[in-house]
Amino acid sequence: MQEKEKLKEWTEGIPSVDAGAERKARAHMDQLTKPRGALGELETIWIRLAGITGQTQPQIGNKRVAVFCGDHGVTAEGVSAYPAEVTGLMMENFSRGKAAVHVLARRFGARVTVVDVGSRLENVPDGVMDRKVRRGTANMAQGPAMSREEALESIRIGMETAERLKKEGVQLAATGEMGIGNTTPAAAVAGILTGKSVERMTGRGTGLDDAGLKRKREVIRASLEVNRPDPTDPLDVLAKVGGLEMGAMAGFVLGAARHRLPVVLDGVISTVAALVAVRIAPQSQPYLFASHLSVEPAHGVLLEELDLQPLITAGMRLGEGSGAVLAFPLFDAAETAAREMATFSELGR
Amino acid sequence: MQEKEKLKEWTEGIPSVDAGAERKARAHMDQLTKPRGALGELETIWIRLAGITGQTQPQIGNKRVAVFCGDHGVTAEGVSAYPAEVTGLMMENFSRGKAAVHVLARRFGARVTVVDVGSRLENVPDGVMDRKVRRGTANMAQGPAMSREEALESIRIGMETAERLKKEGVQLAATGEMGIGNTTPAAAVAGILTGKSVERMTGRGTGLDDAGLKRKREVIRASLEVNRPDPTDPLDVLAKVGGLEMGAMAGFVLGAARHRLPVVLDGVISTVAALVAVRIAPQSQPYLFASHLSVEPAHGVLLEELDLQPLITAGMRLGEGSGAVLAFPLFDAAETAAREMATFSELGR
Repeated sequence: MQEKEKLKEWTEGIPSVDAGAERKARAHMDQLTKPRGALGELETIWIRLAGITGQTQPQIGNKRVAVFCGDHGVTAEGVSAYPAEVTGLMMENFSRGKAAVHVLARRFGARVTVVDVGSRLENVPDGVMDRKVRRGTANMAQGPAMSREEALESIRIGMETAERLKKEGVQLAATGEMGIGNTTPAAAVAGILTGKSVERMTGRGTGLDDAGLKRKREVIRASLEVNRPDPTDPLDVLAKVGGLEMGAMAGFVLGAARHRLPVVLDGVISTVAALVAVRIAPQSQPYLFASHLSVEPAHGVLLEELDLQPLITAGMRLGEGSGAVLAFPLFDAAETAAREMATFSELGR
Repeated sequence: MQEKEKLKEWTEGIPSVDAGAERKARAHMDQLTKPRGALGELETIWIRLAGITGQTQPQIGNKRVAVFCGDHGVTAEGVSAYPAEVTGLMMENFSRGKAAVHVLARRFGARVTVVDVGSRLENVPDGVMDRKVRRGTANMAQGPAMSREEALESIRIGMETAERLKKEGVQLAATGEMGIGNTTPAAAVAGILTGKSVERMTGRGTGLDDAGLKRKREVIRASLEVNRPDPTDPLDVLAKVGGLEMGAMAGFVLGAARHRLPVVLDGVISTVAALVAVRIAPQSQPYLFASHLSVEPAHGVLLEELDLQPLITAGMRLGEGSGAVLAFPLFDAAETAAREMATFSELGR
């Protein structure tokens, strides 16, 4: 249980949110020229950012999406509509700044950091950080996706990434991923951690047909049967039926919480990783924000389990952090309303 | 039936959307580096904008929110948490650019046009266009809110506003409103046009308590009893239990459709106005986009009746067009994805 001790050591410094700053931010919101609470989640965002940062006027100008990449041995079972090579091709696309997450981030004034934590590529493209734990996971339908030590290492890399971004001045972060096949481990981990059935948690990913969906469910059932992950041990679940980018995103959440950095989640992989983090350290939950509701069926269940409400429902299922980036303007809106709207006492003067 | 003939004359020029441009925009979306359809509503937005404008690369850089203001005689019945004077005070706030819709519009690169179509103010503040049909409606609990001629005139002003914005180069428009008491006529009109009960369609507006909500429902029932609006005649409904800003927003939709200008709807008042427009001229429906889902209970029913899906669920209930402005970045995201993402044929080169 050496790993459990390490996780405890890494996460015990996660602070509580600042209730005093939240109260002050709420009082300010209540003075603005609008009915109390009429800006809904925009008010909640601002109040929560105050609690997270401990500032009554939080700064969120410096935004960053951390995209973690990994490959999956389970793609050998034919669980994805795309071949595994597409992970590497998309990393080239990231390198050129022409993927969805990059063009959207540029549009909304954010930057993207890409970390290869487990792709099959021998040489990563320019601009991608090589922090590979191993070159793709093993096929979880035949045994554990990775060792417990490797899972822990993926978490450590995520934590270290969050810490680095914080040092670079990032004020609002998001997590995203690229990894052909990764909705398969996501459905497996989501099912185990929430106690929901494989049927309920498995979707079409990048676009499986009915036969593909049936096959994917069978593969997930077989993986759970072979591995028998312990639902009370998130590291066991991550190692046996998870993924390296999932581990890194879980670590990113833990590291961000440790450093009072708010994290916006993306779709189903990003959110199941956050659930892994919250199962490791429940005190990381208050640092999380949902962005959109993906069409992957597990996503809504996971958000509910995390007690998070999605802001955008746009039928997206792209990953990369693209949905999280789309929510950044709503954070900007919260900030702008808080800073620029008139107060009722200024009216009629 | 002179008014019906006028409406027919005004709306018969509304063109169909361009199916060829839609097909080309869809084909382009399918070539981008993402699974087909994975950007969900962002793809739909782009394809629909192509159909509306007839351009395969639509331009949406010039965005404008048209905010129509009006007062309501029914406030004498105590149906709002705020006194009727707040309409005028908020128009001052608009004039200073410090209301929610202004600060959000500035943040997202849009402008705001404010039109007084029926407030009680004798002199409108600087920057507000004075196109008053009358100084507030009559108390609909005692008789018609306005005459049929006045309702028609409010529609005409909205149409004229849309035409003017189009001439000024606006490429994406939104409708918003200010009018203390206006969720009361909105619930009445929504109930009549959808056939749903007063209970189902009436909400707390700016923040009524339980007793206030009960009273509001009684007032709406009394207004319907006194006026007996004809559900098959949208102008009759608008005149008897509607509002001047509602009429102008309905006219704005008709004028926008006439000039191929896409319109983003805001909350319940904006959306019930759009339903009035679509009942007058069903061919205006394809020019409409939903933005957010308000907490007002009629809003979801109205969006469904209009066959529109909201993009944002943020528990807002402010009006002014504030929710519509919040959706502008999603349109920017659609544009950016379409213009800047790599295609699959560029990958691996």
